[in-house]
Amino acid sequence: METHDIRFPTSRELDGSDAMNPDPDYSAAYLVLRTDDGFEGHGFAFTIGRGNDIQTAAIRMLAPYVIGRDAEDLGGLYREMVHDSQLRWLGPEKGVMHMAISAVVNALWDLRAKREGKPLWLLLSEMSPEELVSLVDFRYLTDALTPEEALAILRRAEPGRAQRIAHLKVQGYPAYATSPGWLGYSDEKLTRLCREAMAEGFTQIKLKVGANLEDDLRRMRIAREVCGPDFRIAVDANQRWDVGTAVWWVKALAPYDPYWVEEPTSPDDVGGHAAIARAIAPIKVATGEHVQNRVVFKQLLQAEALSFLQLDAARVAGVNENIAILLLAAKFGVPVCPHAGGVGLCELVQHLSMFDYVAVSGSMEDRVIEYVDHLHEHFADPVVIKGGAYLVPSAPGFSAAMRPESIAAHSFPEGPVWRAA
Amino acid sequence: METHDIRFPTSRELDGSDAMNPDPDYSAAYLVLRTDDGFEGHGFAFTIGRGNDIQTAAIRMLAPYVIGRDAEDLGGLYREMVHDSQLRWLGPEKGVMHMAISAVVNALWDLRAKREGKPLWLLLSEMSPEELVSLVDFRYLTDALTPEEALAILRRAEPGRAQRIAHLKVQGYPAYATSPGWLGYSDEKLTRLCREAMAEGFTQIKLKVGANLEDDLRRMRIAREVCGPDFRIAVDANQRWDVGTAVWWVKALAPYDPYWVEEPTSPDDVGGHAAIARAIAPIKVATGEHVQNRVVFKQLLQAEALSFLQLDAARVAGVNENIAILLLAAKFGVPVCPHAGGVGLCELVQHLSMFDYVAVSGSMEDRVIEYVDHLHEHFADPVVIKGGAYLVPSAPGFSAAMRPESIAAHSFPEGPVWRAA
Repeated sequence: METHDIRFPTSRELDGSDAMNPDPDYSAAYLVLRTDDGFEGHGFAFTIGRGNDIQTAAIRMLAPYVIGRDAEDLGGLYREMVHDSQLRWLGPEKGVMHMAISAVVNALWDLRAKREGKPLWLLLSEMSPEELVSLVDFRYLTDALTPEEALAILRRAEPGRAQRIAHLKVQGYPAYATSPGWLGYSDEKLTRLCREAMAEGFTQIKLKVGANLEDDLRRMRIAREVCGPDFRIAVDANQRWDVGTAVWWVKALAPYDPYWVEEPTSPDDVGGHAAIARAIAPIKVATGEHVQNRVVFKQLLQAEALSFLQLDAARVAGVNENIAILLLAAKFGVPVCPHAGGVGLCELVQHLSMFDYVAVSGSMEDRVIEYVDHLHEHFADPVVIKGGAYLVPSAPGFSAAMRPESIAAHSFPEGPVWRAA
Repeated sequence: METHDIRFPTSRELDGSDAMNPDPDYSAAYLVLRTDDGFEGHGFAFTIGRGNDIQTAAIRMLAPYVIGRDAEDLGGLYREMVHDSQLRWLGPEKGVMHMAISAVVNALWDLRAKREGKPLWLLLSEMSPEELVSLVDFRYLTDALTPEEALAILRRAEPGRAQRIAHLKVQGYPAYATSPGWLGYSDEKLTRLCREAMAEGFTQIKLKVGANLEDDLRRMRIAREVCGPDFRIAVDANQRWDVGTAVWWVKALAPYDPYWVEEPTSPDDVGGHAAIARAIAPIKVATGEHVQNRVVFKQLLQAEALSFLQLDAARVAGVNENIAILLLAAKFGVPVCPHAGGVGLCELVQHLSMFDYVAVSGSMEDRVIEYVDHLHEHFADPVVIKGGAYLVPSAPGFSAAMRPESIAAHSFPEGPVWRAA
């Protein structure tokens, strides 16, 4: 196992700026697993700068769980890491230690998909319902989803798999564009980027809101004027508001017809999200990028607190926990629209959404994957967007590997990008 | 700022063993703040072994927030740390990074109390309601508790403060004993420790349960026979169960009259706790030692999911966030019975309960502080228990300082205790 503290100086351009995160330096606590027979598995936790060293050190804590182990038993290794009683105390199943498990689990999946010579989405999509269920940890879920119900969901989707794989290969998976709406951009840049997003074939964009209502109203008005009445414009408050504030702020934006409001309040506040959802209907609530684990997603679904579930590839414990989350969403009939952007999150989540379409929910209705147009050039197998859709990745693996030159250049603090600064 | 990775080899004796934590090595990620004028503030995060180095490194990340700063502005420093946008991404407000903030905030309070020459409980108990409210971060709380309501709660308790301080100094604060009930102990040891707890004046003990129902029934029967029908026997499942399992397991124990059931399921599962509470009434639910922050406590109270709130001194962001939690509990009329044990948690929480009694809830009714009889000898100002009650600490500070010999002996991995092993 080899680890790297990789950071990009994104704060210099205000890329990624929002109401809670004014100056992020997008970063990856990155690991590479190497096997005796010459394969590599890559994985990472995404952070926004300070603390990426702690996150990297947390990944190294998990070395005893993978070094010298059989990399094929992914259900078993995942459970062992999550249930290490001493490490569990540092969460449990949340924060730095859980994100570290995510990085290792995802690297193990990258490794396995490469060994089998398939992109991850296809590898998962060809597994039997029984095998998929065996990958899930149902602890704390059985009041909402039992293994038997999970199996039934997967079996229901089985007959149409081949047809949906064929459809995906032709049509790709729809995306929406976040890049136009960062809070730090000027009105001119917003206008230009809205036009570009439409020209590129997107049918939805997202604006960051929550710092200043007047600014939000002006930017919403500009975006609506540029994009027209039928275009979907979501807004994202990045946890800025209390429950009461969220309700009146969203109502103030209502004349511009926001499609969803994302992260209106604390990601921990299930009851708060439910109260907001009731108060702002028919405007819908989306959340998930900071939801710590499957137990909180379970509650958000039980409480009817969200209309779009935005799973994150690297905050919960990787592919295994995300299979549980996809199954929960399918059980409750809520569309999954993953969080992406950051460093390499688009590369990862496309596999999860495509697997969801083929083998879990069986549907693309009301589903879109976030797309943010930066840092893809650092990846060996970057996402390809065409006509506002993600094209299916075809290279073996989880698309998680960064280019060696990019790793070397952005290593913190010794890489040339940081030495120069 | 000086930090230490301190670990005690408690797993060798099965002290602290429970259904989820079979072999903890009680540990402290420890820090000392030193001022130019010769004062020291001590604080720590409690962990159970592996990962204590990550926790210690996370504390060091916060050095820029305290080194060279004015240590008096405790509301301000606390908010700055919690709202550092880059570090916040690692939680937010949960897990390793939040526990690191806890350690620093508590060290700042230890320092302040020493400067003022008072034990922390008395320092807090003599602050004005306005000053106390200014220490709280109300973000995400205002749908349950506004600053005005908090002020009203504190003002209501103001007239009786002097009388309650006098009462505390005479009577102390009631405790309950956890030491008899560790899962790894034999029936003979359980019997002997139950007898000793009664002889020492305790009126409540707690048994660890959840690994094996037959064992639990036998141990509950033994404890009930030894202690008699009027003695309070709480049980603690340490998050072992799913919601359905919790309900039938607790009902199976019901003939032995458990006083409360603690941590029946995931600490993240507000809805699960509420469902369990409804199903097992009149047996009561207690939880809190792993509740990550004030937002989850708010929801547990709103959902009527707990009857006893077990705050932890070092998991949420220290004294400031615990003032918010005490105010929430007072607003909802739920007694606070802190989690203790571990390393130095008894030393810390006694101050919070005594402050609660004097200046917040104004009541001791149905309130007890957990007491575990180990590792106190390593503290400079250890708790004093007499007749089943905590006597008021009188030395200036937060009782957080460990003895220098203990720090040296248990430093990991270079201290003599670990070198020998």
